[in-house]
Amino acid sequence: MIQDSQQQAYDRAITIFSPDGRLYQVEYAREAVKRGTASVGVTTDEGVVLGAYKRVPTELMEAENVEKIFQIDEHIGAASAGHVTDARKLIDILRREAQVNRASYQEPIGVETVVRRLCDEMQKYTQQGGVRPFGVSVIVGGIEDGEPRVFETDPSGSFYEWRATAIGENSAEIKERFEQDYEDDLSLGEGVTLAYDAVKESNDDITPEAFEVAFIEKETEEFRNLSADEVREYVE
Amino acid sequence: MIQDSQQQAYDRAITIFSPDGRLYQVEYAREAVKRGTASVGVTTDEGVVLGAYKRVPTELMEAENVEKIFQIDEHIGAASAGHVTDARKLIDILRREAQVNRASYQEPIGVETVVRRLCDEMQKYTQQGGVRPFGVSVIVGGIEDGEPRVFETDPSGSFYEWRATAIGENSAEIKERFEQDYEDDLSLGEGVTLAYDAVKESNDDITPEAFEVAFIEKETEEFRNLSADEVREYVE
Amino acid sequence: MIQDSQQQAYDRAITIFSPDGRLYQVEYAREAVKRGTASVGVTTDEGVVLGAYKRVPTELMEAENVEKIFQIDEHIGAASAGHVTDARKLIDILRREAQVNRASYQEPIGVETVVRRLCDEMQKYTQQGGVRPFGVSVIVGGIEDGEPRVFETDPSGSFYEWRATAIGENSAEIKERFEQDYEDDLSLGEGVTLAYDAVKESNDDITPEAFEVAFIEKETEEFRNLSADEVREYVE
Amino acid sequence: MIQDSQQQAYDRAITIFSPDGRLYQVEYAREAVKRGTASVGVTTDEGVVLGAYKRVPTELMEAENVEKIFQIDEHIGAASAGHVTDARKLIDILRREAQVNRASYQEPIGVETVVRRLCDEMQKYTQQGGVRPFGVSVIVGGIEDGEPRVFETDPSGSFYEWRATAIGENSAEIKERFEQDYEDDLSLGEGVTLAYDAVKESNDDITPEAFEVAFIEKETEEFRNLSADEVREYVE
Amino acid sequence: MIQDSQQQAYDRAITIFSPDGRLYQVEYAREAVKRGTASVGVTTDEGVVLGAYKRVPTELMEAENVEKIFQIDEHIGAASAGHVTDARKLIDILRREAQVNRASYQEPIGVETVVRRLCDEMQKYTQQGGVRPFGVSVIVGGIEDGEPRVFETDPSGSFYEWRATAIGENSAEIKERFEQDYEDDLSLGEGVTLAYDAVKESNDDITPEAFEVAFIEKETEEFRNLSADEVREYVE
Amino acid sequence: MIQDSQQQAYDRAITIFSPDGRLYQVEYAREAVKRGTASVGVTTDEGVVLGAYKRVPTELMEAENVEKIFQIDEHIGAASAGHVTDARKLIDILRREAQVNRASYQEPIGVETVVRRLCDEMQKYTQQGGVRPFGVSVIVGGIEDGEPRVFETDPSGSFYEWRATAIGENSAEIKERFEQDYEDDLSLGEGVTLAYDAVKESNDDITPEAFEVAFIEKETEEFRNLSADEVREYVE
Amino acid sequence: MIQDSQQQAYDRAITIFSPDGRLYQVEYAREAVKRGTASVGVTTDEGVVLGAYKRVPTELMEAENVEKIFQIDEHIGAASAGHVTDARKLIDILRREAQVNRASYQEPIGVETVVRRLCDEMQKYTQQGGVRPFGVSVIVGGIEDGEPRVFETDPSGSFYEWRATAIGENSAEIKERFEQDYEDDLSLGEGVTLAYDAVKESNDDITPEAFEVAFIEKETEEFRNLSADEVREYVE
Repeated sequence: MIQDSQQQAYDRAITIFSPDGRLYQVEYAREAVKRGTASVGVTTDEGVVLGAYKRVPTELMEAENVEKIFQIDEHIGAASAGHVTDARKLIDILRREAQVNRASYQEPIGVETVVRRLCDEMQKYTQQGGVRPFGVSVIVGGIEDGEPRVFETDPSGSFYEWRATAIGENSAEIKERFEQDYEDDLSLGEGVTLAYDAVKESNDDITPEAFEVAFIEKETEEFRNLSADEVREYVE
Repeated sequence: MIQDSQQQAYDRAITIFSPDGRLYQVEYAREAVKRGTASVGVTTDEGVVLGAYKRVPTELMEAENVEKIFQIDEHIGAASAGHVTDARKLIDILRREAQVNRASYQEPIGVETVVRRLCDEMQKYTQQGGVRPFGVSVIVGGIEDGEPRVFETDPSGSFYEWRATAIGENSAEIKERFEQDYEDDLSLGEGVTLAYDAVKESNDDITPEAFEVAFIEKETEEFRNLSADEVREYVE
Repeated sequence: MIQDSQQQAYDRAITIFSPDGRLYQVEYAREAVKRGTASVGVTTDEGVVLGAYKRVPTELMEAENVEKIFQIDEHIGAASAGHVTDARKLIDILRREAQVNRASYQEPIGVETVVRRLCDEMQKYTQQGGVRPFGVSVIVGGIEDGEPRVFETDPSGSFYEWRATAIGENSAEIKERFEQDYEDDLSLGEGVTLAYDAVKESNDDITPEAFEVAFIEKETEEFRNLSADEVREYVE
Repeated sequence: MIQDSQQQAYDRAITIFSPDGRLYQVEYAREAVKRGTASVGVTTDEGVVLGAYKRVPTELMEAENVEKIFQIDEHIGAASAGHVTDARKLIDILRREAQVNRASYQEPIGVETVVRRLCDEMQKYTQQGGVRPFGVSVIVGGIEDGEPRVFETDPSGSFYEWRATAIGENSAEIKERFEQDYEDDLSLGEGVTLAYDAVKESNDDITPEAFEVAFIEKETEEFRNLSADEVREYVE
Repeated sequence: MIQDSQQQAYDRAITIFSPDGRLYQVEYAREAVKRGTASVGVTTDEGVVLGAYKRVPTELMEAENVEKIFQIDEHIGAASAGHVTDARKLIDILRREAQVNRASYQEPIGVETVVRRLCDEMQKYTQQGGVRPFGVSVIVGGIEDGEPRVFETDPSGSFYEWRATAIGENSAEIKERFEQDYEDDLSLGEGVTLAYDAVKESNDDITPEAFEVAFIEKETEEFRNLSADEVREYVE
Repeated sequence: MIQDSQQQAYDRAITIFSPDGRLYQVEYAREAVKRGTASVGVTTDEGVVLGAYKRVPTELMEAENVEKIFQIDEHIGAASAGHVTDARKLIDILRREAQVNRASYQEPIGVETVVRRLCDEMQKYTQQGGVRPFGVSVIVGGIEDGEPRVFETDPSGSFYEWRATAIGENSAEIKERFEQDYEDDLSLGEGVTLAYDAVKESNDDITPEAFEVAFIEKETEEFRNLSADEVREYVE
Repeated sequence: MIQDSQQQAYDRAITIFSPDGRLYQVEYAREAVKRGTASVGVTTDEGVVLGAYKRVPTELMEAENVEKIFQIDEHIGAASAGHVTDARKLIDILRREAQVNRASYQEPIGVETVVRRLCDEMQKYTQQGGVRPFGVSVIVGGIEDGEPRVFETDPSGSFYEWRATAIGENSAEIKERFEQDYEDDLSLGEGVTLAYDAVKESNDDITPEAFEVAFIEKETEEFRNLSADEVREYVE
């Protein structure tokens, strides 16, 4: 957390530069992301694995409706960390964009195109007055030209492409784990296991039931949610 | 209640992030919700029970017009806690949405669709300048595909699906009670009793007359208000 | 009057939440209402009595033009307390609404419909920037489906239905008096007397001349102002 | 003059409520009115007398162009105190309103209608951001249904009907004098004399030349300015 | 110059009232006028004399382009003091107004009409947010119905008609001089001399070359600039 | 540089008056002009000389693209000091204006017309909220009716015509030098030399290469840039 | 980094002048540029070399998608330093501009035209309220009239043409190195080596893989990215 007396002047109004060239509202929005449970994205030989840790405080809550993973198009999905309401607003834009693309060009939208559209939207909220930045990071994954691709975006509107990445709580530790253990020729099951283990390392109380997984298969180019049983099978 | 000197900078203007990534105006709006008397939603085998504690200070006030429970469509209702004027504004939007749905698709709107529309509206008021967030939480309940569903929303625009949940004053205690006593195969009467007892535990002066109940029946998919007599019969 | 150092941060700009979930500008507007002389509404067996204490400082002022009671439609009236200029703005909207209703549906508007429209308008001024809340409370009374109804509204846009209620200066004391003395089968004259006596108790210098009364009769469903003589006759 | 440390928070931005329910910007605008020389309105048996004290510092100034009394329509006039530039803006609106009325309904506009239109305009400037209230009070006088009527308005948009009233500097003293000496069956000359004497009492250096008088005659229903000679004749 | 600690609260944002009913931004704009060199207007038997003291610091500056006197229409001129750039903006509006009048009514615009239009424009900038008042006073002079007329306006939008008046630096002293020496039947030459002498008294270093004079002749109703030679001839 | 504690209140928001009638934002913009290297304009018998000192820190920078002198039309040019990006925005407007003039009237625009248009634009940015004044002064020079004319403008939108003038760093010293040495019948070469020497006196490290010169010839009425060689020839 | 107590007043709202004529928000934006890794542009005999240091923290990140070098048109490219999201927004505008130029004039857009369009856009964000300046500098390079040209722009909207220049972290040191070692007749390979060595001097941990290079060839006038192998070959 960022905190000293000098910054107080920069957090009142619109997003403006501090004397050392930082945009505090954007950095604070990143803190909001860190307060959310982790989500991960892993490219494998068989396709893209998106995983999200959903902390469910009680049995009375219907876990399947805690949204952290979203389908954007047949071949593209996203996993968020941070303010899920902000994520939904962005996902709605991307879904419409994907539909428009199919209608206009009779072909699926590219993964990178979706990411750029997402980041343009987020950038606007860091430069204009009267709004706050989005308090959410989004991992976008999908198949493009037959290849699995995973992108990480953040509240500033930056994006980076990764083979395996994480956002939200303890994302730095999860990424470190990925760096040690990631291999290029992972199977779907190995990808899910890597994702689960990396998140579990820093959130010891996670269970397979609390780990939502979606998979976009390279061959079929189709997004599907793994059932809790499938997840448990892989990670145990 | 949240309170320390550092937060003072964040409560003046539009809803912006604090250094630790929180949106204080949204959190303050949640405090406004906690100041309102409790409302609950319980799914039962026979349908959805919505209950609301209406504190009526004097006999001269016509209790039936203290609005906390609203019908949105034939098969969907809502119970609010917090600023009822804010709730009315939201309910009006949802009713129109439900009508439009029937007119456009010749079929009733889905419960989850209503909830998403509600939360989109609430999110807007947390990101744009010149407005404050809604000071209200809303439980939306109804029948969808023959199944009873209950959702809890809050001023940030988040929503969660529950088997039984509570909002407003002492909602944490009421939820705890639900966790202990909720069972999957409740009858309507048992649902009403569970709801009433849970609220009564933390609001000892409640009477059946001050507990408004609406029921959306699984079979008929119809919303109806229970009379004070019916409520009394169940809870005694 | 509300007053402590902590609240200072919340009264500068638009209507926003304080850390404990209150909207100070709305509470201050309620103070503006308390600064105005009292108005009352009483349902009787014969119809609705609206009463307003009009403090007339000098004989040179033409008392009948001190507006506190307004006719909205043939069968609906209103009594205000607080900023009368704010009241007039609201009443103009309601009158137009009533006319439109007659033109569109060939039938008189419902009392509760008028109240909801009034409160929607007031709510808007508590949530948007660049305006202040209305500094006025309004009692709306009228005949609906053959029954007398009286509603009390306040600057937040809340409303409650009452058998007898009061707004403005000393309204709490007047309401207490109503609780003790109100009976269900009042005649018009008894209603006027109850209203007058309750106001007089806390405003000792009131005279029948300074107490404006309007009556909406159950049978004819017509609003009419009582002459000063009629009022004097009833209360003496 | 109103002045204490607590109010400082309320005078910076738009017109908002103070904790005790006051609108300071409106009260300050009233102070602006008190800084202007007095104007008066008196109803007599023969019609309405409007009078205005015009302090003319030097012979080189053409006194007849110091505007404080305005003709609005053939049968309606107005006298202002405070910011004359603000008054002119309001008077322009009223003149147009009067013309439109004649064009639309082929009949002269009512005095009270003019007053309500004036006050609606003034109210707007007390509730919306980005503007200040009008710094002027206006006495509107005219003949309606054969009867002389005089209204006093103020920056809040309030209005009261009077038999004789005053605005501006020392208006309280002038009103007291009216209370003592006003009689119902005044002739035009007695009305002018009463007006002049009341103003003179608190502004000893006034002369008949510095006292502009307009008269709206009951019989002809016509506004006309009295010449300086006529005024002198009456008051001496 | 106005200056005390209390006023600090009133000079930050839009033009608002101080507790004693003053509009500081307007008063500060008047200070801006006082910082400009003086301009004068004098009615004579032969027409209107407009004079302006133009301080030219160096021979390299082309004095004739230091604008302080403007022609508005054939028969109307103006002399300004204060921010000349603000003056130009106003003069442009008035010239257009005068042209429109000729086009619409086939007759020259009245002097007073021009003055009212000017003051309406200036008033707007004292009541709306997001702008500052005009930092200029303007003397408007011309022939109307065969008579010379001179008006003085100020940043508040007030206007007064004068036989002889002054604005800008030392205007109070110049006016005093006018009061002593002005006579009703001045010739053009006497008018110019009076104007020059009055300004010279408080600006000892003035020379005829630095005193621009325009004359609007009663007979021809035409505006023309006097040459430096003509001015020198008159004043010596 | 202007600097004392009292002015702090005036630099926060839009351009408003200080108690002594100054517009600090405009004065600060003038400081921005003084921070830029000097530009000069000199009228000669053969035409207008515009000169600009371009400090080029390194050989790697292509000096000819450091813009300080701009061609506006065939017969008009401009030299700026201060924020060159602000200058470009203004020059673009003037070029368009000049083209429109040629298209509409089939004749070249007048130099003074260009200057007035420039100053109108600059004035707007000193009176409206939400923008800052232009941080640039511009010397406009050209041939009008066969005569060379040179105008100096500043961020307030004021303009003055000069025979020889300077803006930017050390402009006061350069002007003093002009006052001593300027003569009416300069040749082009003498004009360039005077300009160069005056700038050099206060910027000792200037070289002919760093002194850009443009010339608008009286006879041909054409703007052209002098080559570095031509400049060197003249000044040595 | 700029830092002292006096500047605190200037960083709150829109971009305004400080008393010494500086625009702090623009200077802070320049600090944001300095926080970004360096980019360079070098003109050679064979064309323009654009280079960018891309710090890639881990093998898992796909380096080729870290955007710092952009193609604008066939013959024009750009390298950025600072907020890459801000850069993307600007690049999008320039690409569209280039396409429009080809469509309208059937010829490629000029390099300088692109630079001017870029700077106009950036200037706007330094003068209007409600937005912050762009936090990015952009080097634009390309072939125009057969010659390689390189421009450096900054957040103020200024631009300069260079033979070799650098932006971002340590740009001053890199420029110094260019001044020492740049020669006019560099081959492509020498240009790449010079660029790499200059950046490496102040960022010792750079590797050829982390140095993205694009080349716009003089002969073909075509932009192409050099492969990592090509870069390594040149610099080793």
